[in-house]
Amino acid sequence: MRIGELSTPSALVDLDKVEHNTRWMSERAHALGVRLRPHVKTHKCLEAARLQVDGHFGGITVSTLAEARYFAEGGFEDITWAFPLPVGRVGEALDFSQTLERFAVVVDHLDTLDALEEGAGRRCASIRVFLKFDCGYGRAGVRSGDPVALELARRMSDSRWMDFRGILAHAGHSYDCRSPEAILRIAEQERNSTVSFAEELRDSGVTVDEVSVGSTPTMRLVEDLEGVTEIRPGNYVFFDLFQSLIGSCEPEEVAFSVLGSVVGRYPERGSIVLDTGALALSKDVGTGESSFGLLTHPQTGQPWAEGRLVGLSQEHGKVIWEGRGGMPKIGERVRILPNHSCLSAALHPVYHVVRGMDVVDTWRPCRGW
Amino acid sequence: MRIGELSTPSALVDLDKVEHNTRWMSERAHALGVRLRPHVKTHKCLEAARLQVDGHFGGITVSTLAEARYFAEGGFEDITWAFPLPVGRVGEALDFSQTLERFAVVVDHLDTLDALEEGAGRRCASIRVFLKFDCGYGRAGVRSGDPVALELARRMSDSRWMDFRGILAHAGHSYDCRSPEAILRIAEQERNSTVSFAEELRDSGVTVDEVSVGSTPTMRLVEDLEGVTEIRPGNYVFFDLFQSLIGSCEPEEVAFSVLGSVVGRYPERGSIVLDTGALALSKDVGTGESSFGLLTHPQTGQPWAEGRLVGLSQEHGKVIWEGRGGMPKIGERVRILPNHSCLSAALHPVYHVVRGMDVVDTWRPCRGW
Repeated sequence: MRIGELSTPSALVDLDKVEHNTRWMSERAHALGVRLRPHVKTHKCLEAARLQVDGHFGGITVSTLAEARYFAEGGFEDITWAFPLPVGRVGEALDFSQTLERFAVVVDHLDTLDALEEGAGRRCASIRVFLKFDCGYGRAGVRSGDPVALELARRMSDSRWMDFRGILAHAGHSYDCRSPEAILRIAEQERNSTVSFAEELRDSGVTVDEVSVGSTPTMRLVEDLEGVTEIRPGNYVFFDLFQSLIGSCEPEEVAFSVLGSVVGRYPERGSIVLDTGALALSKDVGTGESSFGLLTHPQTGQPWAEGRLVGLSQEHGKVIWEGRGGMPKIGERVRILPNHSCLSAALHPVYHVVRGMDVVDTWRPCRGW
Repeated sequence: MRIGELSTPSALVDLDKVEHNTRWMSERAHALGVRLRPHVKTHKCLEAARLQVDGHFGGITVSTLAEARYFAEGGFEDITWAFPLPVGRVGEALDFSQTLERFAVVVDHLDTLDALEEGAGRRCASIRVFLKFDCGYGRAGVRSGDPVALELARRMSDSRWMDFRGILAHAGHSYDCRSPEAILRIAEQERNSTVSFAEELRDSGVTVDEVSVGSTPTMRLVEDLEGVTEIRPGNYVFFDLFQSLIGSCEPEEVAFSVLGSVVGRYPERGSIVLDTGALALSKDVGTGESSFGLLTHPQTGQPWAEGRLVGLSQEHGKVIWEGRGGMPKIGERVRILPNHSCLSAALHPVYHVVRGMDVVDTWRPCRGW
């Protein structure tokens, strides 16, 4: 089957690029001397995760318990759920950990720890646990110098029901950067602050085996990870327009795109309408430059720079056409690099896997929580 | 089952409010003397559509061919696909129309009409067709005075393969309004321009049976629909925070919400983290006031005005807590009215249907294209 035979909208995954991107990050982890525990939340499918762990120890990172179950069923044996453990799901997490020994959860609050300890004690079940550290992003995690942080680490470390693995941080603030230099500064901060915090805990007598960091932009650019034991980038499998605009990848490395068709054409008003709306692309505004993705030619991959995807309603994508000529015709295909591949991919029940213009496979991702 | 027993995130549909909202619009259509052909794209499930058409002729409007098939299988016999017919799906649309006599498509371009006529001729199959009219929104549709518009209408009307139904418009620009008065002006423009265009075609000898208009804001506020034959509002089944902010509904009429839990709590930084991220709510910015939804108490429905949902990453919702006290505790439940219910609902594989705090049903919506 050829791309031209797919109906639209369709999610396309370029397998050559996925292989390039996963190989690149694999080699990078080896070169940096750290273990690679890639995040799988961008694609949520077994096939891409297998490429990510190739040549590594096989551990992965997930964002939901549904992913943990799906990947365990698919043969993955070492899974970290890198999300603040919801107390309402403690029982499920503990039950799941009885079926997968190397399943770890993340905690940053005493109330959550109380609930986890209580549930584990009731079940006589032990579970791996990480302490979440805020390396500057300001979303979740304890901070350095906070006495509660030390108390959490001590209690995790001392609990008979917990196998305290170490600390886990995510430099999500690298997404606020707009240049490789700025990303590099965040990467250094991520490493320095997390390694220092590990030392702080060790100085207080807590054994910290794992120092886990990672975002795609910082892991792409960081030069030194001394003191770090594992990294957890994820978006790099697909990359996206946003990553290319902030200097985290090249546009030709973006492996995920959405195939659309021209369904409306209005030369007198300088606009076209595509069948790729908010339910095919997501309304992530990317860098905020009022475009919901980059239009490219489906064959050549060259950007269609005259077209700007200025508006998304549920199923319509409105494109302002800024040039005089070259406006695509009714029925013509457009391949869109979305602002944020994680959110766009999550909208599609299947990915059409392509090499060049050939459709070579179909991947069915995990959904829900 | 009670709401408190659901895991989070979960999509909640308040059945009392859905019944109130659908009854309200049903009575409104009767009072205005127009047929109600409600749009079902907001919820995409049979149960809600049945409430929408109760007491009316049973016709519905869909946004995708997947919806058309799903609702036809569910017993709906009169379906308009209110989206510019993609030429790549002409064959499927014609085949489907052979199984459902009262299936109509929408066309606004000569190339699309050529493809439809060619496909229909090859199959000796006829199909219902509407001409899409741009009543001021500027997204899709022909405009008044455009000679191509008349040519399209004439050809549709004269074709042996087409049953030309009339014209169809959507006042999507009502969503740019920020007051009931502004919406009312758009509603009048929608009616006046569409009815005038129908007259223009009739003056040229084209029979125009249907004059179809409708958006939820305009149908909520319009006072007179003389010359209009049918209306197609859809969002009103659920409404959402955005509709309440622009004056199209009251906050207590919003029937769709997302149940979340507090998974992170940081009083020293004035923030909490919820398990309702972009994949539970969508990144629609609503009125652009940098909040991704309104936090309410799950029991009382009262707004939790101190909390502002300022950031969504894939699974995390970051809330800035502006008051001194009252910050919800770890594990506490929050019910979020999303900015845009159509996009939030589309992210959930099931809706938990509630009356008060009781979960009374589960609805499974249609997905894909």
